[in-house]
Amino acid sequence: MKLLAMDSSGNVASVALLEEDKIIGEYSTNHKKTHSQTLLPMLDTMLEELGITLEEVDAFTIAAGPGSFTGLRIGAATVKGLAYALQKPIISIPTVEGLAFNLAGTDAYVVPLMDARRAQVYTGVYCFEATNHTYRMKELVPQCAIPVAELMEKVNALGHPVIFLGDGVPVYEDQIRELCKVDYSFAPQHMNRQRAAAVAALAYQKIKPHLLEDGTLESVPGLIEDAYTFAPEYLRLSQAEREKKEREKEKA
Amino acid sequence: MKLLAMDSSGNVASVALLEEDKIIGEYSTNHKKTHSQTLLPMLDTMLEELGITLEEVDAFTIAAGPGSFTGLRIGAATVKGLAYALQKPIISIPTVEGLAFNLAGTDAYVVPLMDARRAQVYTGVYCFEATNHTYRMKELVPQCAIPVAELMEKVNALGHPVIFLGDGVPVYEDQIRELCKVDYSFAPQHMNRQRAAAVAALAYQKIKPHLLEDGTLESVPGLIEDAYTFAPEYLRLSQAEREKKEREKEKA
Repeated sequence: MKLLAMDSSGNVASVALLEEDKIIGEYSTNHKKTHSQTLLPMLDTMLEELGITLEEVDAFTIAAGPGSFTGLRIGAATVKGLAYALQKPIISIPTVEGLAFNLAGTDAYVVPLMDARRAQVYTGVYCFEATNHTYRMKELVPQCAIPVAELMEKVNALGHPVIFLGDGVPVYEDQIRELCKVDYSFAPQHMNRQRAAAVAALAYQKIKPHLLEDGTLESVPGLIEDAYTFAPEYLRLSQAEREKKEREKEKA
Repeated sequence: MKLLAMDSSGNVASVALLEEDKIIGEYSTNHKKTHSQTLLPMLDTMLEELGITLEEVDAFTIAAGPGSFTGLRIGAATVKGLAYALQKPIISIPTVEGLAFNLAGTDAYVVPLMDARRAQVYTGVYCFEATNHTYRMKELVPQCAIPVAELMEKVNALGHPVIFLGDGVPVYEDQIRELCKVDYSFAPQHMNRQRAAAVAALAYQKIKPHLLEDGTLESVPGLIEDAYTFAPEYLRLSQAEREKKEREKEKA
C-alpha cells in the first residue's frame, strides 16, 4: 500500500511517500517561500524522482490541523483536489500528534509546541508504549490552544520528564526555562519540526485495523475521510471570524 | 552556519541542509535508482527550491562509512569534489552513529543494523544522555562488522531494553526474535533508515567545540577533514581486495 503524506501546518512544507514498512521518499523545506509556491512542486519533483505516478497512490494523509490557517487551507485544498481527482481516501492526522510521533520510542512525555500567536501554543502531551515490539502513542493531554503558563502547570502536575519540540520552542524557551519544574529536554534539529514521514507512519499505524480484504479502507469519521467529508481542524476561530464576533458583541 | 549533509551509505540517498537550530531542507529517496543517478540531482533540486547556492554553504558533512562500497565511494567523490571546488571542510560522521542519532531521546539502547552481506551486520550500540537539556549520544559498542548472533550476545549481556533500526532489520528479524533476550522494539518507518538530517544534527553538535572566532572550523583528524584528507571508512576489505588476498594466500 502506498500512502502519500503532506504537512503544511507550519513553516515547514513536507511531503512523503510510505510503502508498507518503508518511507520511499521524503522532501521537506523550511525556508521563506510560502506553501502555495512549494507544496505541489515538491510533491511533483519527489514523485518524478521516484518514478511513481499519482495514480499508484492508494491513499492520502495530511496533518489536518491545528496550525497556520493559510497553511492548513493550502494543504486541505491540495489533498482534496488530489483525492477527488483520483477517488482515493484522505486520512486525517491531528497536527500535534504527527509532530509528537517524531519522537516515537522515547520514555519522556512528548510536548509539541506550535506557536499559535496571541500568547498561545497549539500543544498536547503524548507518551509511547511498546506493544508487540512496535511503539504506539498514547494521548495524555489532547491537542488544544492554551497559554504556555497554563501548559507548564499541566506538565509540572504530570511529574514526569518531558521533551519539547516545535516552532514554539524558540519563541517560548525563556518561559519554559522559568516555569518548567520537571526534567526537560529540547528535541534536536532533525526531530523538532513537522515531517510528513511521521504523519505517514502514524497514519499507517492508525488505518491498519480498517484495511478491508480487497485492500481498500473502510470509512471512519474523523480518521478515514474522502474529498467531500475531509475538513481541517482549526481549533480556534480565524482572525476574521473572531473580529466579526467581537463586532456583533459590541453592537448587541 | 550552513551545513550541507549527505548520506549514500545504504539504499537511501539523502541530502539535508542545517542552519543553526533548524533543518531548512531535507530530501531522501529509497527506491530503485542508484546514487550516481540521484544524489547530485537531489542536492541541486533542494538548493534551488531553497534559493540557496553552494557558495553559501560553510561546511559539508557525510556519513563516512561503513556501508555499501559503491554508495560510500559515490558519496565520498561527490563531497570531495564540492569541498575541493569551494575550499570548505568535510565533517566525517560514522554511518552507524548517524543512523543511531535518528532515535535521539530514547531511554533504550539504540542498535543500528546495516546489512553487510556475508552473514554480517554493520552495527554498534549507543545510548543518550541529556546534558543542559540537549541529548548527547554515548557509544557503548563501537561500530563494527559482526554476525548477528555475536551482536545478540553483546546486546543480551548489556541487559537493557533496545531499539533496532536499519536495513538489516527485515533481513535479520527472525534471528532477532529468536536470540534477543532483552526487551526490544523496532523503530517506526520515519526513523528506521539513514537520514542526512540526523547526520547534520550530529555533526553540528560534534563541531561546536571546534568553531573558531572567525566562524571557521579548526581541523580535527577523523572529524573535521578537507578534500585531501577525507576518506571513507569501509571497516572491511572490498570483495576485490578480499579475493586478491585469498589468491595470494593460496599461492603462498
